[in-house]
Amino acid sequence: MTSPENVRRVACVGAGVIGGGWVAHFLARGYDVTAWDPAPDAGRKLRRLVDAAWPTLISLGLADGASPDRLTVTDTLEQAVSEADFVQESAPEKLDLKRDLLARLDAATPAGVVIASSTSGYPMTDMQTAAADPSRLVVGHPFNPPYLVPLVEVVGGEHTHASAVAWASRFYEIAGKSVITMDNEVPGFIANRLQEALWREALHMVANGEATVRDIDLSITEGPGLRWAVMGPMLTFALAGGEGGMAHMLDHFGPSLKSPWTRLEAPELDKQLYDAVVAGCDEAADGRSIADLVAERDRGVVEVLRATGRLDREGDSR
Amino acid sequence: MTSPENVRRVACVGAGVIGGGWVAHFLARGYDVTAWDPAPDAGRKLRRLVDAAWPTLISLGLADGASPDRLTVTDTLEQAVSEADFVQESAPEKLDLKRDLLARLDAATPAGVVIASSTSGYPMTDMQTAAADPSRLVVGHPFNPPYLVPLVEVVGGEHTHASAVAWASRFYEIAGKSVITMDNEVPGFIANRLQEALWREALHMVANGEATVRDIDLSITEGPGLRWAVMGPMLTFALAGGEGGMAHMLDHFGPSLKSPWTRLEAPELDKQLYDAVVAGCDEAADGRSIADLVAERDRGVVEVLRATGRLDREGDSR
Repeated sequence: MTSPENVRRVACVGAGVIGGGWVAHFLARGYDVTAWDPAPDAGRKLRRLVDAAWPTLISLGLADGASPDRLTVTDTLEQAVSEADFVQESAPEKLDLKRDLLARLDAATPAGVVIASSTSGYPMTDMQTAAADPSRLVVGHPFNPPYLVPLVEVVGGEHTHASAVAWASRFYEIAGKSVITMDNEVPGFIANRLQEALWREALHMVANGEATVRDIDLSITEGPGLRWAVMGPMLTFALAGGEGGMAHMLDHFGPSLKSPWTRLEAPELDKQLYDAVVAGCDEAADGRSIADLVAERDRGVVEVLRATGRLDREGDSR
Repeated sequence: MTSPENVRRVACVGAGVIGGGWVAHFLARGYDVTAWDPAPDAGRKLRRLVDAAWPTLISLGLADGASPDRLTVTDTLEQAVSEADFVQESAPEKLDLKRDLLARLDAATPAGVVIASSTSGYPMTDMQTAAADPSRLVVGHPFNPPYLVPLVEVVGGEHTHASAVAWASRFYEIAGKSVITMDNEVPGFIANRLQEALWREALHMVANGEATVRDIDLSITEGPGLRWAVMGPMLTFALAGGEGGMAHMLDHFGPSLKSPWTRLEAPELDKQLYDAVVAGCDEAADGRSIADLVAERDRGVVEVLRATGRLDREGDSR
């Protein structure tokens, strides 16, 4: 098995928005990329996606030798993976299709090579059932576009070997991604559970005429979204507690968990959960005081406001 | 009644994290600010908050004549509001307390002056019941910290006069905020419903040992949070549909609404909702093509990555 440091050729199977985004990312990081997609015009669309992303990737900084010319679109799945050091599957989100495809990929890929699925939420345990060697199959869940949003969530299934999970996590890090390695399979992993809750609430609001699509988007980009690029929802909320941090926030806003502010019922805020959240925030703060975190958030949000051009279009008095 | 353009003196009642953040914002925008809070050490804490925020406010750009010296902390509520052109209430989130306080503020504030509540989610209809003149009471819901996050959600109650809602929306705009004016009262308004859904899902995950606080925060700051500073969740998801936009995204991911990716049950994706979401995205795109939106998102995310220092700490190959 090639070590994560020595990967040279990556195969991307499925070349839609996500698969194509992976292709662009791996090309920019200096890999040879082979790609296959069964759609008749997939190759053309893929090259268009890569061309459109390339100026962005240049501005991010390319790896030595990176070039869109190092992409090969193959006629068959087997050609795409036969010499790959790593395989990224990004097929449509249908369980049967994923299950069959992963079995085909397993049959065609050199022994020992790790195969990752971009699935948005299927547990690998459910997808690896038809493969002869399920031990090398992992989830490597990216966010759109994979060439720009760093996060990848990595988790194995019941029949995945721990070494394959570790290999994939290390490889993604080397390839410039931010990795969360999960110990347990949770449908939707972590980030998708969070954004799916928000998305479903948004759909309910549209369905009930409570907000327009435009209001929903504006409420995030001018509101919480500015903070979330800088600091996650937990530490952000800890700062709503003032000098008392998360404990004070929970004392103050804990009762709001009973309020009809969303259609999602909250868990009971018992002592165990209260303590876990407070301790988790302390751990995440990692020695930074509330004042440190406030200063850090403020610096970050100012930079984000500046970077997104918002400082030019505020009140008359400016 | 003073016109929104001619407001000189703003009263902030309640000077905790949110009230203090409003004080800092209004000072930075060049207003005289009077503040009152019943806590014994509130004045000291408030000045500390303003001092801590001031360097940030300088970097954002102060209005002419803005100074922390234009803050007066008063001994009584009545002193704070007696000469105010606008009142912002930011008391603890308890309905009885808000109801009584708004009645007291109404009694002490000059006739015709608009009084806004920072409530995180109570409908004004439920809070205005004890006031002699409920017609001037509105919700003006900010995000923490109010001196930095632009969004304010404005909505009236059943007994609020439409002119008070319009006055408040206009005043906030002049004072440098981004305003969403809502026609109907929805508990939690818009942004809080969305972030509360995410927060409750996060609490469930901690309660069930599915993710740590640190993982939750990382999953947002390295993932969807980077996009949400630039483009809201609806248009962001439209781009997951590739050249087919939101319609293709719903075709592709619609079935995932049945998946257990969150504890929040989704609405039925019937034709009416499908059409409303697609049409809403078209309207929000406002003539921009999918390619335009992709380019805009990419430019924005690159700037956010740069602004938050992420370009310096990626893969070895960079």
